[in-house]
Amino acid sequence: MQLLKDRIIKDGANLGGGILKVDGFINHQVDAVLMDACGQELASLFKEIGADKVLTAEISGIAPAVMTARYLNIPVVYARKTKPITMPETVYLTTAPSHTRGTMTELIVSPEFLCCGEKILIIDDFLASGSTIAGLARLTAAAGAQLVGIGALVEKVFEGGREKLKGLGVPIESLAIISNMDDGKIVFSN
Amino acid sequence: MQLLKDRIIKDGANLGGGILKVDGFINHQVDAVLMDACGQELASLFKEIGADKVLTAEISGIAPAVMTARYLNIPVVYARKTKPITMPETVYLTTAPSHTRGTMTELIVSPEFLCCGEKILIIDDFLASGSTIAGLARLTAAAGAQLVGIGALVEKVFEGGREKLKGLGVPIESLAIISNMDDGKIVFSN
Repeated sequence: MQLLKDRIIKDGANLGGGILKVDGFINHQVDAVLMDACGQELASLFKEIGADKVLTAEISGIAPAVMTARYLNIPVVYARKTKPITMPETVYLTTAPSHTRGTMTELIVSPEFLCCGEKILIIDDFLASGSTIAGLARLTAAAGAQLVGIGALVEKVFEGGREKLKGLGVPIESLAIISNMDDGKIVFSN
Repeated sequence: MQLLKDRIIKDGANLGGGILKVDGFINHQVDAVLMDACGQELASLFKEIGADKVLTAEISGIAPAVMTARYLNIPVVYARKTKPITMPETVYLTTAPSHTRGTMTELIVSPEFLCCGEKILIIDDFLASGSTIAGLARLTAAAGAQLVGIGALVEKVFEGGREKLKGLGVPIESLAIISNMDDGKIVFSN
């Protein structure tokens, strides 16, 4: 998606070590109009798969997931990292390594909102190592729901997430695919 | 806003102790179409105030804030509760009591994205005790920005937030205003 790639070149920063700073338009400050366009594009890419629900992880997955869901006219569920008091006692919980913090993060979904037989489209801001998305896929399986697709705004190919997730056997789409961030570069392969 | 009030009656639950469970459509599972309509309504209520930016707090403020910002054609900044590695060393930080957890939460904004002279509209999912919104107002003041309005999806009048925030001297709008949750009831005053 040219609009997103142009914005990454204009306002993103390669901090080294594979870290892409996009907090001016994706994950601290959000360009709501750009996010709307990204949601529309992701919805268009997945319009034929018949998803019943979008699943994402708090925090930075929420904006792209809600925008995608709006265009698909379906609800979003965002996995919580802590269990609120409004959630039932028994939940689906998995753990995933946090890429940028070096810790394990819990991903928690209420069984009220992830149900047997539902077709689930996972949307997140980044597809990097694939650990968070793999965790969301495990929650989907735990609920007896059916994963039907995976979409991300930005993919870092060199972190191997797509390889890791390939075994799930569903289409994987990313709007901006970065193949190389060596030496301060940001090189796209799409 | 009738659509939101109807949904609260249909799918919300009064858990007692002033706790309203709306995690089927606002803050775990999100009805993206309803959220879009709420964003449009909040944008319409604040269209004359000339806001440059929407400010909210992660996590559950993100969906309504992004939808409101989209209709106002301005960016959103969401205050983080932990400082990511992509954020500068020096930040604006304030603490606010977490209503549902009984702990103190940090609210952190990068000076890159909250600037002197900007007109700030605060949007959150709940206006209850007003503590989170008061924290966001302190961050706004710390940055030398100007608060111009406060909007929420759901207000619980009996927790006194509006009284607490009145001194800020800006318009406060909530789409569903609940005046009484005693004895399992949910009574609106708007």
